Amino acid sequence: MARIVMKFGGTSVANIERIQNVARHVQREVAAGHEVAVVVSAMSGVTNQLVAWCREACPEYDLREYDAIVASGEQVTSGLLALALQNLGIAARSYQGWQIPLTTDSAHSAARITGMDGDAIISGMRAGQVAVIAGFQGIGPENRIATLGRGGSDTSAVAVAAGVQADRCDIYTDVDGVYTTDPRIVPKAGRLERVAFEEMLEMASLGAKVLQVRSVELAMIHKVRVFVRSSFDAPDAPQVGPGGLPPGTLICDEDEIVEQQVVTGIAFSRDEAQVTLRGVQDKPGVAARVFGPLAEANINVDMIVQNISDDGRTTDLTFTVPVADYDRAMKLLGSLESDLGFEKLDGANEVVKVSVVGMGMRSHAGVAAKAFSALAERGINIRAIATSEIKISVLIDAAYTELAVRTLHSVYGLDKD
Amino acid sequence: MARIVMKFGGTSVANIERIQNVARHVQREVAAGHEVAVVVSAMSGVTNQLVAWCREACPEYDLREYDAIVASGEQVTSGLLALALQNLGIAARSYQGWQIPLTTDSAHSAARITGMDGDAIISGMRAGQVAVIAGFQGIGPENRIATLGRGGSDTSAVAVAAGVQADRCDIYTDVDGVYTTDPRIVPKAGRLERVAFEEMLEMASLGAKVLQVRSVELAMIHKVRVFVRSSFDAPDAPQVGPGGLPPGTLICDEDEIVEQQVVTGIAFSRDEAQVTLRGVQDKPGVAARVFGPLAEANINVDMIVQNISDDGRTTDLTFTVPVADYDRAMKLLGSLESDLGFEKLDGANEVVKVSVVGMGMRSHAGVAAKAFSALAERGINIRAIATSEIKISVLIDAAYTELAVRTLHSVYGLDKD
Repeated sequence: MARIVMKFGGTSVANIERIQNVARHVQREVAAGHEVAVVVSAMSGVTNQLVAWCREACPEYDLREYDAIVASGEQVTSGLLALALQNLGIAARSYQGWQIPLTTDSAHSAARITGMDGDAIISGMRAGQVAVIAGFQGIGPENRIATLGRGGSDTSAVAVAAGVQADRCDIYTDVDGVYTTDPRIVPKAGRLERVAFEEMLEMASLGAKVLQVRSVELAMIHKVRVFVRSSFDAPDAPQVGPGGLPPGTLICDEDEIVEQQVVTGIAFSRDEAQVTLRGVQDKPGVAARVFGPLAEANINVDMIVQNISDDGRTTDLTFTVPVADYDRAMKLLGSLESDLGFEKLDGANEVVKVSVVGMGMRSHAGVAAKAFSALAERGINIRAIATSEIKISVLIDAAYTELAVRTLHSVYGLDKD
Repeated sequence: MARIVMKFGGTSVANIERIQNVARHVQREVAAGHEVAVVVSAMSGVTNQLVAWCREACPEYDLREYDAIVASGEQVTSGLLALALQNLGIAARSYQGWQIPLTTDSAHSAARITGMDGDAIISGMRAGQVAVIAGFQGIGPENRIATLGRGGSDTSAVAVAAGVQADRCDIYTDVDGVYTTDPRIVPKAGRLERVAFEEMLEMASLGAKVLQVRSVELAMIHKVRVFVRSSFDAPDAPQVGPGGLPPGTLICDEDEIVEQQVVTGIAFSRDEAQVTLRGVQDKPGVAARVFGPLAEANINVDMIVQNISDDGRTTDLTFTVPVADYDRAMKLLGSLESDLGFEKLDGANEVVKVSVVGMGMRSHAGVAAKAFSALAERGINIRAIATSEIKISVLIDAAYTELAVRTLHSVYGLDKD
């Protein structure tokens, strides 16, 4: 017997028929003797309608009212799933964020979870009652509903799993797990049985869209084992994968991964634009004068490369910003030209960041060199490089995305037979 | 300056445009210097959709889940109206039942209000903030959302008005007040400026559908002055009626009604069916043996007439039941024939109850006699009579409804010039 949290997104609960299908997934776990809590999103489309009404009622809407309005979507699905479970003869009840309570800070519409009281849910589960929890929401410090922002239901699910000390948090999604890279680009991409939290965090933040970054962070902190699986599986499909699980990917502590690969996957992100300041004065304080104003304008700077000065007086400074902020960043830096005293402002938004990720990298030399030479052999120019203990990222022209990803996937032996 | 509660129903908040129109009604009262709380229903149609989903998910649905689901409708409109008010530059915030808190008993889906804490709303209003309250809902003893049943938003509004000691509770409805009778039947029906609580209670329970009976009861207990007015009036229409009010009807304590009419109005109810037991034994305990089983079957009995026995042994017993329960009542009584020992079971569901209502009746003799002779003159046979201090009800054939109502309306001098 295990304690399991199951999370279903908006398309899985889009109508009563699908909610009944979700109920059968829950029924299977209950029949297996598990204690179950379920976290649900709003019916797909509902949140968008509610947001549209908010905009129409008040273009500069109050985020506290916005939260009260949009949280109603999950309120409805949690109640309906509880009813659908009861209809199968399974004891169930719904919980809203304020009833648990799942507490948050006051950053309405993008609140962070500050606490999760698992007591009521645990005693309900022990009595054989399935807890159906409205995802995406909690209660703020002023007793007002606060939502966690888009994709917040994943985060809710992990927080609930941590709060009730669940053995596993199953995320039902439209893919059947985490792949070595995007199978639409590399047909030989394979599903990973297990991924370490740290790797998943790099994969998620680098563009693999299976899970929200925040939910992976939370899972890592609380050591919540997250199992990504397909919501399209029939509820009665055999659960025969390794460890008694169906096809899917377990995101877990690295201790649980017996045979650690050097490289786990190749991620890429098209959400990057490159900015280069040429002929910047090479003296202390310059970086602060460049990045300070960008931070104030709330523009995230990612890869930063500064070459050693040729002439001892000036240097080139390259970094990336999100594509959406590119125009704003260029305009801002242009306006600072006289202050910063650079020679030329260059930029490119037809670029992509490709990353090689793997925990095994820490103990293996030559991983980066292998990437660089493989890309060079294909004639792919590297615009910038950034590395961490478990990843190597390169910025290249967007036109080479597929070629680069396929090359690296093959070079590190990730191609499936 | 006054403190006003305004209540708007589902058709008044059916879409964003109408919600913005409601906001302008509120704006007018705020501009006049009043402290305002607003109670809203769900957008029309939304509650029906939610109820349909509940039925689909689980035909025998858990009323606690039903409540959580349907209460979401008012949650959305309260938030949207708060936003629409903010868009007009008016400080506003929404309150759900559990936030106030407005407490109820545990009779989910038809809960009764047990408490209403006005403190937060009053201090908000004093600081110039309009309180927008989700109607129809409160929080039950187990910290779960409880709804008050259909039409419960009127009751919410009166409870809020009592809780914040409002000077008036304005109910915006699809008619511009309470009439001496239904104007569709009597074109000469006139709008009443003022009606006493007791009269309104008789009018409401007798079939005038302007206000829910429960809301009138609550208003009477807490002496909340209720003003019924049209939601179709333009928000900027002049507020020039008597007492600075627009056209409408004030439901208030009888002390506020200077010139009390003998008869205030003629009500009628088609929701009546007649049952007659002929040749019932005329001895103690018979009535209990008839009405006990009906009560157990949850069938409300209304007018009861028992004639004096002709032969000292048997008598006829006549009473009315709601039309919806007629077949059930006849079947039940038929099955008790041997036990009760009556001669014959008669019934009629083509009947109507017409009532003459007026506080002044208490101090005027001959009011009933006037009705009986007027009906007799028109050849209308009276099947049963029931009276209270302030009303006379007669049961007649449904075919005579219009004739009887017009006759009584005219006889008591209610016809408008």
